[in-house]
Amino acid sequence: MAMKEWKFRENSKLKTASAFSIKLVLDDVKTNVNPSDERTIIPLGHGDPSSFPCFRTTQVAEDAVVDALRSANFNGYAPKGGVLQARRSIAEYLSRNLPYKLSPDDVYVTLGAKQAIEVVLSSLRKPGANILLPKPGYPAYEALAILNQIEVRHFDLVQENGWEVDLNGLETMADDKTVAMVIINPGNPCGNIFSHHHLQKIAETARRLGILVISDEAYAHLTFGSKPFVPMGVFGSVVPVLTLGSLSKRWLIPGWRLGWIARNDPDGVFNGYGFVECIKRSLNTNSEAATFIQAAVPQILEKTSDDFFVKTIDILRKDAEMCYECLKDISCFTCLQKPQGSLFLMVKLDLSKLEGIKDDMEFCSKLAKEESVILLPGFVLRMKNWVRVTFAIEPSALEDGLERIQAFCLRHAIKK
Amino acid sequence: MAMKEWKFRENSKLKTASAFSIKLVLDDVKTNVNPSDERTIIPLGHGDPSSFPCFRTTQVAEDAVVDALRSANFNGYAPKGGVLQARRSIAEYLSRNLPYKLSPDDVYVTLGAKQAIEVVLSSLRKPGANILLPKPGYPAYEALAILNQIEVRHFDLVQENGWEVDLNGLETMADDKTVAMVIINPGNPCGNIFSHHHLQKIAETARRLGILVISDEAYAHLTFGSKPFVPMGVFGSVVPVLTLGSLSKRWLIPGWRLGWIARNDPDGVFNGYGFVECIKRSLNTNSEAATFIQAAVPQILEKTSDDFFVKTIDILRKDAEMCYECLKDISCFTCLQKPQGSLFLMVKLDLSKLEGIKDDMEFCSKLAKEESVILLPGFVLRMKNWVRVTFAIEPSALEDGLERIQAFCLRHAIKK
Ligand SMILES: Cc1ncc(COP(=O)(O)O)c(C=O)c1O
Ligand SMILES: Cc1ncc(COP(=O)(O)O)c(C=O)c1O
Repeated sequence: MAMKEWKFRENSKLKTASAFSIKLVLDDVKTNVNPSDERTIIPLGHGDPSSFPCFRTTQVAEDAVVDALRSANFNGYAPKGGVLQARRSIAEYLSRNLPYKLSPDDVYVTLGAKQAIEVVLSSLRKPGANILLPKPGYPAYEALAILNQIEVRHFDLVQENGWEVDLNGLETMADDKTVAMVIINPGNPCGNIFSHHHLQKIAETARRLGILVISDEAYAHLTFGSKPFVPMGVFGSVVPVLTLGSLSKRWLIPGWRLGWIARNDPDGVFNGYGFVECIKRSLNTNSEAATFIQAAVPQILEKTSDDFFVKTIDILRKDAEMCYECLKDISCFTCLQKPQGSLFLMVKLDLSKLEGIKDDMEFCSKLAKEESVILLPGFVLRMKNWVRVTFAIEPSALEDGLERIQAFCLRHAIKK
Repeated sequence: MAMKEWKFRENSKLKTASAFSIKLVLDDVKTNVNPSDERTIIPLGHGDPSSFPCFRTTQVAEDAVVDALRSANFNGYAPKGGVLQARRSIAEYLSRNLPYKLSPDDVYVTLGAKQAIEVVLSSLRKPGANILLPKPGYPAYEALAILNQIEVRHFDLVQENGWEVDLNGLETMADDKTVAMVIINPGNPCGNIFSHHHLQKIAETARRLGILVISDEAYAHLTFGSKPFVPMGVFGSVVPVLTLGSLSKRWLIPGWRLGWIARNDPDGVFNGYGFVECIKRSLNTNSEAATFIQAAVPQILEKTSDDFFVKTIDILRKDAEMCYECLKDISCFTCLQKPQGSLFLMVKLDLSKLEGIKDDMEFCSKLAKEESVILLPGFVLRMKNWVRVTFAIEPSALEDGLERIQAFCLRHAIKK
């Protein structure tokens, strides 16, 4: 049978959108690994540490899910926006770090922070609208903006300033069609933490521009430097904030797909703008998180002991230090700051110091081939000739990986 | 703070799309229930029987999920398209009823059949494309077609022919921009089952038109009449078929969000058309089902005993008969055929026999108010002045609900 020729040809919007996919780029890099290399592959490109034994989730979380499942009370469809007890407990959890209280109505349960991004961007969809995204950033924002016909404009995070937002640059690129700006704090991919002071300046800038702030806090509380994590919602009365969060990273369970959108708007600025309606409609056309997992959220949020968090943070701190100390001394790398949070750091390549490597993709491909170490080329984060390094793996494996990177760089260094 | 006025005003596409929502319409109907009515509410509008004790899922399914969760091997992100063992077991499960074997590559795991619809429609997105949908049908198709800028054309299901497709009508409305047609079998909302012969005629028509068939088999195997369930994939070598399925209905676990898309294309017609690429891209921008639930699929599909299915079917058969026998004798209703599958039947209102009721919405609203019985007005299914009745509840509650409907119709009958 012949289908008519024009059918199923490129859907160009989907094609462009899916170009911004860490997963696809990593898959590409991995194809270079030499199958006859007998050493284990060291994956330093991922954002999911859950497969390493040292990053196993707490039994509290498992028990919570089993209890909800065994009750048989949560086999049915969940209400749109989420199971009430989950919304309530997320509101309470977030309120612990805020100067005001969120209500369950301020919270929508999503399939991880990823769907929170989907829902928020599709609610902002509007002909001619534009959105300000950080560079480097998280590619899902670009992909979903494109699918929702929202124009993307990039503001810089400045390495020399500890990856703070270039607020002057940001102000010049905003116009009256700008709907929102996105920050990611703790930072993916830079491993930075925004200070209270810097967040305040961001809030004031957004207020001046009349735009809302989308604060991606998928890595909330994963900090191990001197700066504490401050949620953007603290500035909710300066500017309305949508906070995106998730159990994925702090509880090391990205496969459970449980996240949220929280409306940090104590003065009710959103009310007059139909925005809540738009969010609800967008949720309505999306699938929701498994009901029994939602029902487990209160137990997970309330019963997880500090020991579990402390253990994770201790490993991450050790990993981050080891990683930074090693990479900063490699001569073809620039890496100015020890990561203070999240699971990542960014390294700038100095290609003039390397023989026969023309860009970040080639660097990562050859490294995969010769050393079975996987890094993420920066181009997918809009940072050509940088690489993102994930340090969140077993410390012993990290040590091995770092040695291989050192050896690789030495071997490819231009001979003077 | 003032946000610029133009922002967040109606997103008209989302608004139109979410008008096609059974949930929102049912919520509307429910607002009419009189809180001082002391009788329990009888919900006959829903599509989710899982909250009734007689429709509790099998322990096999619960155990499978607990095992996957406790193994701690499935806390991480799932691969795009789904966990391999889930894809393999779904392929095997579907192949039991096919004249050829599906491979794991033919199957994509989704968040219920709902996300399967999302993914398929967004892969078909293309300027100028149109799709043929059944009337009555399932509103998510309309909503997602609109969001994906695909024009919707409705073909009729004809009550007098046991709700078969009006194939002549369908052929006249197809043109060279038609990408696909959708069938739902077993039928929601009509409770009909398509015969082998009728499915073959559908396949031949689609082949002639050069369009693919999307076969929504969310209610697969829920049949209790004389006609067996035949999957559309049986005709995969006449015309390529995308089968959408789910654990939701047969296993009574819609809240677990586990479904699939299966490519029934033994002759590889799709290969030349880039369609598989489009599906993959669309999956890439969507969130996926919880990994440990995916990992439980093989055990669920292989280990569930026939006793469980037989028990469900026995209750549904009894419910369907009771429902049909009662409703067909109500004089303001037309209901020509006893349901043979799914959880529903459609009833046509004869408003000329009713006093002071102007349409289906008013019928349902007053019924809710006076009798605390919830039915779904047909308009949301594009069948104005029809109602959809769900019979899948505890038989005793169904009996009570049917008596109340009888009393209501009698009370509102025009006095001769
Ligand atoms: C910045 C950021 N936001 C959102 C997400 C999505 O996280 P999830 O959907 O697992 O909650 C990620 C995942 O890596 C991320 O890095
Ligand atoms: C015809 C049809 N298709 C798809 C679905 C979606 O089912 P789920 O996403 O729960 O698998 C439903 C649910 O009611 C349905 O009736």
